[in-house]
Formats: sequence, C-alpha cells, structure tokens
Amino acid sequence: MSSGKPKLWNFSAGPAILPPVVLERAAEAVHELRQDGHAKDAAGVGMSILEISHRSAPYEAITFGAEKLVHEVLGVPETHQVLFLQGGASLQFVMVPLNLREADKFAAYVDTGVWSGRAIAESEGLGPTRVVASSKATNYDRIPEFPAADTYAGASYLHITTNNTIYGTEYPEIPEAQGGVPLVIDFSSHAGARPMALERAALGYAGAQKNLGPSGVTLVYVRKDLLAKKPAAHVPVYLRYGTHAKEPSLYNTPNTFGVLVLKLVLEWMRDEGGLAAIGARNERKARRLYDVLDHSKVFQPHAQPGSRSHMNVTWTCGRAPEAQREAIAKKFLAEAQALGFDGLKGHRSVGGFRASIYNAFPEAGVVALCEFITEFERRL
Amino acid sequence: MSSGKPKLWNFSAGPAILPPVVLERAAEAVHELRQDGHAKDAAGVGMSILEISHRSAPYEAITFGAEKLVHEVLGVPETHQVLFLQGGASLQFVMVPLNLREADKFAAYVDTGVWSGRAIAESEGLGPTRVVASSKATNYDRIPEFPAADTYAGASYLHITTNNTIYGTEYPEIPEAQGGVPLVIDFSSHAGARPMALERAALGYAGAQKNLGPSGVTLVYVRKDLLAKKPAAHVPVYLRYGTHAKEPSLYNTPNTFGVLVLKLVLEWMRDEGGLAAIGARNERKARRLYDVLDHSKVFQPHAQPGSRSHMNVTWTCGRAPEAQREAIAKKFLAEAQALGFDGLKGHRSVGGFRASIYNAFPEAGVVALCEFITEFERRL
Ligand SMILES: Cc1ncc(COP(=O)(O)O)c(C=O)c1O
Ligand SMILES: Cc1ncc(COP(=O)(O)O)c(C=O)c1O
Ligand SMILES: [Mg+2]
Ligand SMILES: [Mg+2]
Ligand SMILES: [Mg+2]
Ligand SMILES: [Mg+2]
Repeated sequence: MSSGKPKLWNFSAGPAILPPVVLERAAEAVHELRQDGHAKDAAGVGMSILEISHRSAPYEAITFGAEKLVHEVLGVPETHQVLFLQGGASLQFVMVPLNLREADKFAAYVDTGVWSGRAIAESEGLGPTRVVASSKATNYDRIPEFPAADTYAGASYLHITTNNTIYGTEYPEIPEAQGGVPLVIDFSSHAGARPMALERAALGYAGAQKNLGPSGVTLVYVRKDLLAKKPAAHVPVYLRYGTHAKEPSLYNTPNTFGVLVLKLVLEWMRDEGGLAAIGARNERKARRLYDVLDHSKVFQPHAQPGSRSHMNVTWTCGRAPEAQREAIAKKFLAEAQALGFDGLKGHRSVGGFRASIYNAFPEAGVVALCEFITEFERRL
Repeated sequence: MSSGKPKLWNFSAGPAILPPVVLERAAEAVHELRQDGHAKDAAGVGMSILEISHRSAPYEAITFGAEKLVHEVLGVPETHQVLFLQGGASLQFVMVPLNLREADKFAAYVDTGVWSGRAIAESEGLGPTRVVASSKATNYDRIPEFPAADTYAGASYLHITTNNTIYGTEYPEIPEAQGGVPLVIDFSSHAGARPMALERAALGYAGAQKNLGPSGVTLVYVRKDLLAKKPAAHVPVYLRYGTHAKEPSLYNTPNTFGVLVLKLVLEWMRDEGGLAAIGARNERKARRLYDVLDHSKVFQPHAQPGSRSHMNVTWTCGRAPEAQREAIAKKFLAEAQALGFDGLKGHRSVGGFRASIYNAFPEAGVVALCEFITEFERRL
C-alpha cells in the first residue's frame, strides 16, 4: 500500500512488507527514473528503470550507490566484496560449495531446519559434507550449541543459517569460527535487522525479499582473499564469485529494478536512524509479542528462550487441551484473516502460526496482533 | 516513459524499451496489485506486487496466467514445459550442458558471435564440445550455412543463437535438426518478434529484458521428455530443469515483479494482434531502416542480406573514405544523442552503430531515425 494504514497487516515471511515510501519511489521509477541513483529531487532521465541499459550511467549510479550503502548501512566491512546476484539464496546453496570446497577437505554445516537442510543437500551432492551440530531432535526449536572447534577443524568452511524463517530461531549473535575456518552465513531472513558482527563471516548471503527489498536479488558479501581460492573442481564461469566481483554485479544483465528497490530500502534504513534504531524497534516489537505468548494459557511459542527470532515469531496451540487444538487454530486463523491479519498460518514443519515482523512491519501492527490474541483468548 | 511521445528514442539492446501501457500497469501494481493476475478492472488485493507472498493465490494467478500466455501468444507448444527462472540467459549457458549432456556424447554448437561464444565456453568447461559451424571469419556478419547432419550426429544436442544481438544477424527461420538430435535455441533477443516454429527446438531460452519484459527473468521452455533424461554427471538440485518443472517456477522465490511485467507484456502483445501483427510491423520497421542504409554512400550495414536481424540493425561508416570514418562516426553519434536518439553506439565487436528496434519500439522512431540518417548524409 502506498499510503496510510494498510488495509491488511502483512505478516508474509517473504516476499514481505516494504516501507510505503519505498513503494512510492519504486513506482515513480517505473514511470521515470531519476538521475544520481534515483535521488529524490534529481532530474528524470527520460526512461523507466525497466527500460534502461545496465551499461548506462544512471544504472551505474544505482548499483554502485547500493553497494556503498551495503557497507555503510549494513556494516559489511571493506575487506569484503559486495555482490548483487540472481537465483535467490537457493543458488547460493550451490555456489558456496562450488567455490569454497577445497580438494581433500570436507564442508561443515550446522543443521537448523529446512533451509540449512537444502544447503546441506546441495553440498552433499558436490563433495564430502559433515553435519557438526543439529537441533532436529527438538524440531528445530533452538539454535544448537555452537560446535566444538575440533568437529570442523580442517573443513573448507563452516556454514550456519543465522535466522531460521520457518522455526523462528535466531543466533543471538554471529559466532566466531575457530582455527581460521571460513564461516559462511545464510542471513536471508534477518539481514539488516540490527547491528551484527558481519565481519566474522567470510561469506554471507541473503535473498533480498525479506528485509532488503523485492525477490529476484540476492545480496552476497565475500572476503576478497576467498576470490583467489582454488576450488576442488571446475566451476562454471557464471557460478564463480570471481566472475561477478571482477565486473562488479555487471557480468551479465542484473535485476536492475530489484537492485534499485534494494537501494531505496537501504536509504530508508539509513533515514530511520540505521541499524541501531531499527534494532531497538525490532527488539520492542518481538518482546511485546513473545510476552503475550509466554503468558498465554492456550498458545505456546515454538522457539526456546535464547534462540528466539526477532523477525519470525512462531507459536502453536500447545497449551490448549490436545483435543481442542485443531479447532482453536482454525478459529484463530479465520478470525485473524477477517480482521486483516494476513499470512499468519505457520509453515507445515511447525504447524500453528507465524508472524513475520520484518523491519518494515509497523509497531502498531504488533500491538494490534497482541490485542487480538489477548482478546481471542479471553473469549475462548 | 508513461505517456505520449518519449523525450528519448530508446534504442537500447537490453534492458530495452517497453510499451507505455505496460509501464503504467506495472507502476500501478507497485502501488497495489489487483486480483486475477492484475486484471484491469479487478479489485485490489491490499498489497503491492513487491510485498506479496509467492505462495499466495494472487501470485499464482500471475505465474500460471503468464505461463498460459507464453503458450497462447508466443506459440510454445503444450509438449513443452514453460519455466520462469532467474540468472539471465547466462545461467542457461550452464544449465543446458549440465542437464542435457549425455555420457560419452559431445555437445554441438554453432558459433555466431560473443553470446554463442560464452555458451560454448561453459560447455567446454563441462565436457566434450564441438563447434560445427561458425561465421567468425567474416566477423559474424552472417548466419553460417546450417551444418550437415553428420557433423552433429550423435551429439547430446545442437545449440544455436537464433538472433545475435551484437552483430545484428538472425536465422530467417528456426531450422530443423536432423537425426533426432535435440535443438537448443538461445532466442533471447527476438523472442516474440514474429511467428516462429518454436516446436522445432527441444529447449529454448530467452532473457526477458529485450522483447518480453524487465531483466531478472529468463523464459525457458523445455520438451517434457527431456526432463527425464539422465545427465552425464551430478547436477545440483537447483540447476535441474526437473526441479523447476515439478513445482512450476515456484521451487524457490521467483522474481515475482518480473513475472508480472512479463505477463503484462504478453497481454499487450495479444492486444496488438499477436505475433502476426507484431511481425508485420517489425518487418516494415526493419525494411525501412535497411533500405536507407543500403542506399547510403557513407553507411554500410554490417549484417549480410539473408541473415539480417529485424531486432538489432547494425552498421558502420564502411562506405566513407577510410580516413574520414572515425570523425563521421563521432559526429553522427553526437548529433543523434542531441536529438534524443539514445543508445545507438555499436558494440565494440562491430564498432559503428546499432539500432535495437524491439517490439515496443515505435514505427515513428524508425521513421525519425531514417530521416535523420538521410539528412545527416546530405549535410556531409
Ligand atoms: C533462511 C532462508 N534461506 C534460504 C531461503 C531460500 O531463499 P530463496 O527463495 O531466495 O532461494 C529462504 C526462503 O525463505 C530462507 O528463509
Ligand atoms: C543473444 C543473447 N544471449 C545471451 C545474452 C546474455 O543474457 P543475460 O545478460 O540475460 O545473461 C544476451 C545479452 O544481451 C544476448 O543478447
Ligand atoms: Mg565495496
Ligand atoms: Mg529454516
Ligand atoms: Mg504449460
Ligand atoms: Mg551475439
């Protein structure tokens, strides 16, 4: 929605809610792009963002401007190259092992659910792979203890999923891998959610469609020394990070519109006060919702304290009598939908409910949801 | 530009000019998407196309609607599965050999320039590859004679680039491969330009950013029996056509906005009278421009008669005295730019000039360019 209170509260896990001002400016650029990376009061370039060559000066201002903002706003250090790729996080499940596997070494993964499972499966197809920690036994309701250094010593890299969209679990902070093993993070669903020690990762990737923009763009950042690493086997030219670093994000035609919207989102984040301010707001939003759920006699949060995501809050009817759970869940979802709370149905792996409350999700929407939950429970 | 005569004539080779009505409707969907695949008078869904889940009913109406239009408007037969992927045509340079190479067979390619060269290089990295025809000797100024059946007999597939964006060459019609060898076409830069025998190809792919939409979406169509073919070596799950065919174009998060714009372009094509009407107009546009160039005493078309593209018209100052060519070219480009003819500089592989006159490029713009060329020459 381009203005005012939305008719719907959009709790989608991704593609997800974006700031109204970003939608406004993106729509404007579909009509006519402006100079200087679509700067607010700059002159129009006489073309839509959808029509303009990626080899043109106006597009270079967009992509290099966005790259700069990734460093400045998200805090990716200058030791790392920023890339805007296509194919989603799912293509990174493939590119990571292709590029980072070294001969005679295994790849180490922490298993925290469906998405790390897909990453593990792609790695297994390409070479020796070890799962060095997992929370599968408790249906991924927590981040497992960080694996001991000897479990991943000698690995080509150690891969973790820092926010697990489906289960609503999140690493409280980005851990440090020991022994010089490169840490790789899939931070798709909490990129930009708060200040993070991104420099601890040798490589990070995030599908943009949660906190950072529309679908069709993947943010990757990779430590520059890794670009020179010799992989274990032939890597197709297009799938090499080095290819996209050399002609930065311009080796082939990028998702030009997607990169513009990503830039507009980063500008919005900067204007909101940056990650510190955004992180504080996210903290308030999440605390309020977990608080209601923790005090409920019907609902039960899925993720355990200490592992709880500030972006994706998951819960079930686990405190209701077992025989009533299905009926309550159905009633809750139907009433919620009727009131404009959209996208609350949980993923089938957890059941129940999920409220994705990304950066652009307003505090007022969390307040409204909390009031509805409390009121619903009172009526039961 | 959203309305009326553009301030610029946009001759970009891609991303390229789109119909004003498509830009208008795309901008509207950035504000608020409508039901039924963003049908003109349908109700709004209360969210932007940039915010809506790809697992929602409104998005399913978009992607399945677009798929249906690819069959109906472009004429892809029902024997083939339509896919909307990411990564551009460049990722197809990799996916084609990964998926279609069979053990102990070579892959056959026709070399018609830079893009087929990149496709060949990716194939060579993955297995035995033979170039069975080339027009390199004449700087790709023509489509080489179609290779004799015995040159590619026993190949996993035969790959051709049916329109060569850089050189301005085009197969007059899609050829038939002999002996049951699957034909693969890169038809990126003339997809939907006129009625074509697409059924002759076992697999076709096109980056959308020329005739079909914005960048960030690749149209692929693949004969269904090929999906069951056993490739020569392990293929990562994400890079298998079968993966994207099984959950059609929804295995992971697609470029949702890009697929919507593709659908809007296909609707525009249908409303313009379909490929027959569009092809006739493209024929008139191209004939008018080649005619002026053929009669010029200064300019010389690069592509030879019989191989000339209706989409990308390339020419040099080849009929001017050699000592004057550089100065004339400079003057021509500077004056053209000042008059609003944008993007006429030729690719460095050919030099000179290139006018990309895709489906959405208005006849009036070609008339204006022809008048300018004639008038420029008169003043020399
Ligand atoms: C943590 C995480 N990783 C990976 C993915 C897959 O991303 P994509 O759909 O961009 O391939 C998702 C999608 O929701 C995700 O949440
Ligand atoms: C014929 C042809 N094939 C492939 C490509 C590469 O496409 P992409 O940039 O979508 O990877 C192009 C780009 O212009 C092209 O014209
Ligand atoms: Mg940088
Ligand atoms: Mg997960
Ligand atoms: Mg179909
Ligand atoms: Mg070419």
